[in-house]
Amino acid sequence: MPDQTAMKAAMLRYIEAFNAEDAEQVCALYADDATIEDPVGAPPIQGKAAIRAFYDNAVATGAKLSLAAPVRGSHGDAAAMAFAVDLPAQGLRIHVIDVMTFDAAGKFASMRAYWGPEDMGPA
Amino acid sequence: MPDQTAMKAAMLRYIEAFNAEDAEQVCALYADDATIEDPVGAPPIQGKAAIRAFYDNAVATGAKLSLAAPVRGSHGDAAAMAFAVDLPAQGLRIHVIDVMTFDAAGKFASMRAYWGPEDMGPA
Repeated sequence: MPDQTAMKAAMLRYIEAFNAEDAEQVCALYADDATIEDPVGAPPIQGKAAIRAFYDNAVATGAKLSLAAPVRGSHGDAAAMAFAVDLPAQGLRIHVIDVMTFDAAGKFASMRAYWGPEDMGPA
Repeated sequence: MPDQTAMKAAMLRYIEAFNAEDAEQVCALYADDATIEDPVGAPPIQGKAAIRAFYDNAVATGAKLSLAAPVRGSHGDAAAMAFAVDLPAQGLRIHVIDVMTFDAAGKFASMRAYWGPEDMGPA
């Protein structure tokens, strides 16, 4: 089982790097062959190039993430966190829960973002 | 895609029925062949009998659930929610995120509970 403290620290670094608009640091948290399904139900993307393009676009929106409750670990290789995504330019807020799985090196092997059409609304 | 409102309503009914110590109503939200992995990383259980035993035991602890943030939907057949589990007899609180998937009838096909050893502490 990956170290709980290390998994949670990686989740928090994800938020910090995202809010610093540092797509490179965000992507450094991911394994080379990692997958992203954001939102859950959309076709997943895979691999460093696709993930970098995803975050270059995401941070360029000016979106800022704020944790809604403490990050949860697990008794396995996964952790989960509830947060809000604020899009100031659009005056919108999205309520999201991300679930990450981790590889043996402590990198994100997968990220799945739970948010539905009704979870986006006025900030 | 299952109806977002219906999925979220089922998640909230789950909390209400659990807090009412009504294991039968909790189990009525599940499909007959549903699986539960609680915590994530533990061996899953499957089927009505195992699920009923699980909730008979869980409600008997006196545990009470309180939502920590709005329930999230998805663009698929899943929803997720962050909540706290208070165990008054033990003076403990567990921080949990549940992810449910739904079948075509709107019943829980699976539940996975994300919480780690370090997510349980003094209330």
